[in-house]
Amino acid sequence: MPTTTPPPFTADDYRERMARAVRSAADAGLAGVLIAPGPDLVHLTGYRLPAETERLTLLVLAPGRDPVLVVPTLEAGDAARSIGAPALTLRDWTDGKDDPYAVAAPLLAAGGRYAVSDNTWALHLLGLTRACPEARYTALGDALPMLRAVKDARELERLAAAGAAADAAYEEVLRLRFAGRTERDVAHDLAALLRRFGHEQVDFTIVGSGPNGADPHHEAGERTIAEGDMVVMDFGGLKDGYGSDTTRTVHVGGPTPAEQHVHDVVREAQQAGVDAVRPGATCEDVDRAAREIIESAGYGDLFIHRTGHGIGVTTHEPPYIVAGERQPLVEGMCFSVEPGIYLPGRFGVRIEDIVAVTADGGRRLNTTDRALAVVE
Amino acid sequence: MPTTTPPPFTADDYRERMARAVRSAADAGLAGVLIAPGPDLVHLTGYRLPAETERLTLLVLAPGRDPVLVVPTLEAGDAARSIGAPALTLRDWTDGKDDPYAVAAPLLAAGGRYAVSDNTWALHLLGLTRACPEARYTALGDALPMLRAVKDARELERLAAAGAAADAAYEEVLRLRFAGRTERDVAHDLAALLRRFGHEQVDFTIVGSGPNGADPHHEAGERTIAEGDMVVMDFGGLKDGYGSDTTRTVHVGGPTPAEQHVHDVVREAQQAGVDAVRPGATCEDVDRAAREIIESAGYGDLFIHRTGHGIGVTTHEPPYIVAGERQPLVEGMCFSVEPGIYLPGRFGVRIEDIVAVTADGGRRLNTTDRALAVVE
Repeated sequence: MPTTTPPPFTADDYRERMARAVRSAADAGLAGVLIAPGPDLVHLTGYRLPAETERLTLLVLAPGRDPVLVVPTLEAGDAARSIGAPALTLRDWTDGKDDPYAVAAPLLAAGGRYAVSDNTWALHLLGLTRACPEARYTALGDALPMLRAVKDARELERLAAAGAAADAAYEEVLRLRFAGRTERDVAHDLAALLRRFGHEQVDFTIVGSGPNGADPHHEAGERTIAEGDMVVMDFGGLKDGYGSDTTRTVHVGGPTPAEQHVHDVVREAQQAGVDAVRPGATCEDVDRAAREIIESAGYGDLFIHRTGHGIGVTTHEPPYIVAGERQPLVEGMCFSVEPGIYLPGRFGVRIEDIVAVTADGGRRLNTTDRALAVVE
Repeated sequence: MPTTTPPPFTADDYRERMARAVRSAADAGLAGVLIAPGPDLVHLTGYRLPAETERLTLLVLAPGRDPVLVVPTLEAGDAARSIGAPALTLRDWTDGKDDPYAVAAPLLAAGGRYAVSDNTWALHLLGLTRACPEARYTALGDALPMLRAVKDARELERLAAAGAAADAAYEEVLRLRFAGRTERDVAHDLAALLRRFGHEQVDFTIVGSGPNGADPHHEAGERTIAEGDMVVMDFGGLKDGYGSDTTRTVHVGGPTPAEQHVHDVVREAQQAGVDAVRPGATCEDVDRAAREIIESAGYGDLFIHRTGHGIGVTTHEPPYIVAGERQPLVEGMCFSVEPGIYLPGRFGVRIEDIVAVTADGGRRLNTTDRALAVVE
């Protein structure tokens, strides 16, 4: 498979996303949104910093004013070179000369309630609170949990390309030998394949063989894979800034009827989950649809996690496909559907695709065969 | 050089560090210290999580009670396996069942003032504020900036081992060819050498050749190094969890008298900085001592950064060796002394060693020759 690189985002893409965020904030009764470096900032501006630091960088979005990015002078050049920069006014502050919180404070309305990105450092929130004591603060994840959940066409294109790359990695890994190699060896191959097919970042390559597959939190260890093993492979990362995450369960040598039956149930549950995806259905409807199949087959107690999670500039984000989440699905949302059955001490089965919500229902971004593949 | 692995920390080491933190907190009038995942948690407990997440993990330290670590049930096993675990009481909370902030709140005194680690997520600080509205919060970096600054004997041993490994990498890089290769090539070699000598993490490998050396924020680029270039190499990372950071400036072919003179001035300034290190001197005394030499030589305007920074479980932390920092040096503090002269458009020179404060003065943890080395 040739790796494809989607066309770059434009400043207009980011301008539109920020405008959408401002509208959502106003609808939620917020005076504005305050965004620190991290996935929210990447989504809204394209500006990616290695990590948040003790030096304040803060995007201030508020109705009726242009977006302002407060940045350390030292980093202003990098910020000005980011694709979204034309949609931003930069306001820089200098180490040892300015109080960064005093630079940000005049951008806030005294009595306003602001949503701050979840991962903003306490150091900065406390600094803002000091500089602007009359404003009130709430976590963005509580106030606007769906801010990044609805993807635009260009984001969907990237998620599809990341999914296709992960699919290509899976097709390749099937040709490799499993029996006699460790989980870690296979995980290493998976990571190399994700990179070969265009991922710039690998977030996880879970390989759970035999009884290890029964622990959904198992990563990949020194266990040597043997003939007769079920092997759960769950892998993903970022390609061109957007996430992949897919799971297939394979069998070394060929399954027993009992193993095949468990796999059939999970496959049917995964299909039911995907079939339940349509605008207006809720997150918990999708969870329910998948879970019912597994419960009816008598394995309800062995499906011990939620059915899925959103994906975008990170590999785990809202919406969460879980009982109690009544958020209605909206065209453009993108999340995993990944039911599983885990038989302690024996084996596990999980099947996962990323699914985008379209007007017509769920569109899978992973399309490799979900039948139980037999490997050597 | 054989790489040495220092003996592992023990639960008692962490118990002692936490007790020291509690004493410092009490001295500062705090009711306690709240620590999220990150370098503070690593330092105090040895528990290293990949990154902070939306799931609350919080160490609560307060006078008169044993340290408590609030952890998600899913991660309680990992926490229980960390070396510091015997010194901790774990209190776990379950996704979808417990409110993690309600689990943490009873550990706090209603009217108390708590220092929270700088990088604690706003999501968590806001959750704690909601669950415990009468407590007051302040940033740890403001309240107890020197919490990790004084290293114990076992930490110093690791910093010395990391410094020795970086020195070994420097000795090796001198044997390589510079002329005709790019900065990035040399940076790549430096990173590989740091790993070969035991670093598990490489944080930076700056290679600034010719005019690029005059920009202290330059990393390493596509410039081809040529005969006649000065080359600044500043590199470091983590070995066994503790940092290295050293800089040497070399010359390809042999310096002109003018180049040699600039290097001599920086070398003298670096020596003066190290000579100023002793218990009771202040951070700014060290900065002043190095800066005076450079100012006297007429290059004061070209030394455009602070003289140094602390090092420990991160490669940049307090104390900062800078004008205005009146913090007295204490035996066990460990920081860089790294003056430089930057001639825009021409070249730069910087020389950096990590220095530990001992009863007798400064002890260099980097001991490679500081004379201007000539490379090919």
